[in-house]
Amino acid sequence: MAVFTRVTDADITAWLADYSLGTLQGLQGIPSGIENTNYFVTTSNGRFVLTLFEKLTADELPFYLNLMAHLARHGIPCPAPMADRHNRFLGELNDKPACIVSRLHGKSILQPTVANCAAVGAMLAQLHVAGQSFGEQMANPRGPAWRAQAATAVAPFLPPDAAKLLREEVALHAHNNPGDLPQGVIHADLFRDNVLMDGERVGGLIDFYFACNDALLYDVAITVNDWCAGANSTPDATRTRALLRAYHAVRPFSAAEAAAWPGMLRLAALRFWLSRLYDLHLPRDGELVNAHDPAHFERILRQHIANKNPVWL
Amino acid sequence: MAVFTRVTDADITAWLADYSLGTLQGLQGIPSGIENTNYFVTTSNGRFVLTLFEKLTADELPFYLNLMAHLARHGIPCPAPMADRHNRFLGELNDKPACIVSRLHGKSILQPTVANCAAVGAMLAQLHVAGQSFGEQMANPRGPAWRAQAATAVAPFLPPDAAKLLREEVALHAHNNPGDLPQGVIHADLFRDNVLMDGERVGGLIDFYFACNDALLYDVAITVNDWCAGANSTPDATRTRALLRAYHAVRPFSAAEAAAWPGMLRLAALRFWLSRLYDLHLPRDGELVNAHDPAHFERILRQHIANKNPVWL
Repeated sequence: MAVFTRVTDADITAWLADYSLGTLQGLQGIPSGIENTNYFVTTSNGRFVLTLFEKLTADELPFYLNLMAHLARHGIPCPAPMADRHNRFLGELNDKPACIVSRLHGKSILQPTVANCAAVGAMLAQLHVAGQSFGEQMANPRGPAWRAQAATAVAPFLPPDAAKLLREEVALHAHNNPGDLPQGVIHADLFRDNVLMDGERVGGLIDFYFACNDALLYDVAITVNDWCAGANSTPDATRTRALLRAYHAVRPFSAAEAAAWPGMLRLAALRFWLSRLYDLHLPRDGELVNAHDPAHFERILRQHIANKNPVWL
Repeated sequence: MAVFTRVTDADITAWLADYSLGTLQGLQGIPSGIENTNYFVTTSNGRFVLTLFEKLTADELPFYLNLMAHLARHGIPCPAPMADRHNRFLGELNDKPACIVSRLHGKSILQPTVANCAAVGAMLAQLHVAGQSFGEQMANPRGPAWRAQAATAVAPFLPPDAAKLLREEVALHAHNNPGDLPQGVIHADLFRDNVLMDGERVGGLIDFYFACNDALLYDVAITVNDWCAGANSTPDATRTRALLRAYHAVRPFSAAEAAAWPGMLRLAALRFWLSRLYDLHLPRDGELVNAHDPAHFERILRQHIANKNPVWL
């Protein structure tokens, strides 16, 4: 359950008086999510999502809110932050930074089809293209420095061979990017649960709170590792190719990106193996919640290491 | 038929390459509208409306497009202009200024209920409140100078008693506003055909190309004159009261506005009587299209003159 801060009808009604969103018709806590408190809010104007930020601070939030607003005005189906009467996206509710965003259509699917993967690939490329005209910057908080620190912290919990693999991979990727890969704003967490499918269409991309500037290809690798993982964590060739080709049709990959692809798949697997190890062995206070299995990403990483010629276009 | 400039699938596909809206799935001309060419455009990202501006120029358009973007980010259900890869709302297609906006849900209704009128009143007040934080200005192009000029132009076509009424009313309202009424951005043309009802909800406000800065109460009077006109152009008291009360609940009227209401109803009726007379007797080149009957607004004006105590809250 992820309603950390309770919001009553009276709270939200008073808060909405500073917006032009009409009158409250419904308020419902959203159980998923582990970092923020979320509510569905229905008003006479439409359907929205209220978020109270439990960890991110008011200083950190403008990048994410302005990014979502930027992408929404480019037609990317992402939550559009609503501005209040003072033209601000960020407010405060029950002593937490808070915002209200448009609610999108669709639901996340756990067993994506080839067509789903193609739709996600095309949409990711559109996000990357639209992000090129966004003026703000955010370094990747899960970059090389974080990887080194996290690996040191979790290595003691691992069997020797896994600890050795972790150290070697962190050393391999100690620098941010190989070569001169195209950079830009990336979602950095476009797993299946952060995409709402509305039939065959991508109805929404959500949860932008890991978004940052990094190599665009890194985002593609993160997405492929999740969307195209088949049984026993084996990458599915057909889905991978469909995702990559649909992406390529919108933003063609460069030769440098083609060359970097095998290493990027490993880097993307390493990042989530690391964070899952961290969440499992070193949970933050109060962070009970369903830690995901790190072994899934260890298997993906080992398979990428074994396969020097992964599926490309 | 209001497709003045033809757009082919090939035209729009090439044009969309500069946007992040996905691939074309459907293109359909919209027969209504008398000033612009409009098409429904369906892409893999969603439903949009393409507008080619036949009269407004690229210099005049930023006010309207920025206003719609401003209102949309405040949760007012109005068309949200989509930005291209250079972050611009305004493009050019087939030698016309052009934009593509989100397509809203709902349809206009000709026989509004009391509940519909209340919903429109509340939404109009929200539009006025959200407009207060919009930074750009546009003088009303249908203000006192236009009224004087238009009255002189159409008077020769009228019977003597109507010409006399017209001259007297124009003289009465020769100054922009009585007293110090609250000012702001107004829609200025919120007739039934410019509101899409989605069930009981206002799904969309459209056609912002008469929007400008003026007295907020003037917008209310324009809206009441259309939405609350009953049989034989007689104002319907129940619908009028419902619209005004719903508006007042969102943005309370001032004492000065209460005092100005009878005169404002007359001014709003005069403005549309005048423009309909103009369109009927002095149509611009190529403006064949269904001129509306001026007599409807002459009747409304005469009834407002006869009734010194119109329905208020």
